[in-house]
Amino acid sequence: MKHDKGMVIVLSGFSGAGKGTIMKHLMSSYPGFYHLSISATTRPIRTGERDGREYFFKSRQEFDEMIANGEFLEYATFNGNSYGTPKEYVTQLTREGKDVILEIEVQGALQVRDIFPDALLLFVMPPSADELKERLVGRGTESSEVISQRLAISARESALMPRYDYLIINDVLEEAVCEVHGIIQSEHFATKRNKSAIAMMQSQLKAFA
Amino acid sequence: MKHDKGMVIVLSGFSGAGKGTIMKHLMSSYPGFYHLSISATTRPIRTGERDGREYFFKSRQEFDEMIANGEFLEYATFNGNSYGTPKEYVTQLTREGKDVILEIEVQGALQVRDIFPDALLLFVMPPSADELKERLVGRGTESSEVISQRLAISARESALMPRYDYLIINDVLEEAVCEVHGIIQSEHFATKRNKSAIAMMQSQLKAFA
Repeated sequence: MKHDKGMVIVLSGFSGAGKGTIMKHLMSSYPGFYHLSISATTRPIRTGERDGREYFFKSRQEFDEMIANGEFLEYATFNGNSYGTPKEYVTQLTREGKDVILEIEVQGALQVRDIFPDALLLFVMPPSADELKERLVGRGTESSEVISQRLAISARESALMPRYDYLIINDVLEEAVCEVHGIIQSEHFATKRNKSAIAMMQSQLKAFA
Repeated sequence: MKHDKGMVIVLSGFSGAGKGTIMKHLMSSYPGFYHLSISATTRPIRTGERDGREYFFKSRQEFDEMIANGEFLEYATFNGNSYGTPKEYVTQLTREGKDVILEIEVQGALQVRDIFPDALLLFVMPPSADELKERLVGRGTESSEVISQRLAISARESALMPRYDYLIINDVLEEAVCEVHGIIQSEHFATKRNKSAIAMMQSQLKAFA
């Protein structure tokens, strides 16, 4: 079946839920199925990098103009360098029928829906809050204060869970990856994503009547 | 993940689209996954049949009382015998966590949603209107007038397609069966079907804060 176009898929969830790991395994387990968006950044280009492959490299002025023109789906600044997801590139990929997958923090994820109303929003969480805490502690990189802060953020973010489309419990990684893939593939059959196939069938049947 | 409860799944679509064949193959390809509802009927019990296995056998008076009490999801009469899908039996199966699948004509299918708002509605169609016509002709059992009538009904029914959740194109049977299974399994991860898991995570996180 020829679906209307590619989907924008947002993978989000609590810090420590394993979003990044799921993304990595999804890309390697199902090669060719999913496309990553390329971010724009003000960080200087490094040896071996190419503009438009790792990043779209922008000057500070160019980046600020993109912000002013509303060209970003979302953006953020770390260590003085800014990073953003350009809308236009995502739009272009979906027009080509490609499924684009974005890993975004909880607050930003819901904003994507304002721009792409048919975006598919997936929320990743560990099997329990205890497990979430253990994973944050297990990293061994954060102080107990930082861990408490993160859990407090997760508690606030949990109020937004019902606004997501699907809930993925990341207990056994392989299962979670398989579920994410199954959900995305099934969503292609949603009637709202097949308006042109429906319209065609309706007009063909009308011709018989 | 412990989902809230079993789902009510309605498989519907044009006459001649192959709903019955998909149902049969779904039941045999994925044994134990899906449960059929048992209809009530006024038809006399036959040798070898058992009340509550093939059908719930009812007298005309009992059946009419069930209609009057609104106990049917839908009902119809063929050759003087009435057949109906009892709501209570479907409710009971879903409470036990079982997925119940119903094959229902297009008009009746949407009524199921009035009673089960979370019912999953699947619309089956052939790859084209020409193919639908060919399948009806190919049966060799209907006159050309009946075929024209059926196509006219399909044309009217096609206006309801956007109100279904998913569209299944029955081109290669095995693929269609596999898609139906995938869609149902993925739907179990919908946030609206996991309200208790979400509520539990929210309360656990609150306890940390």
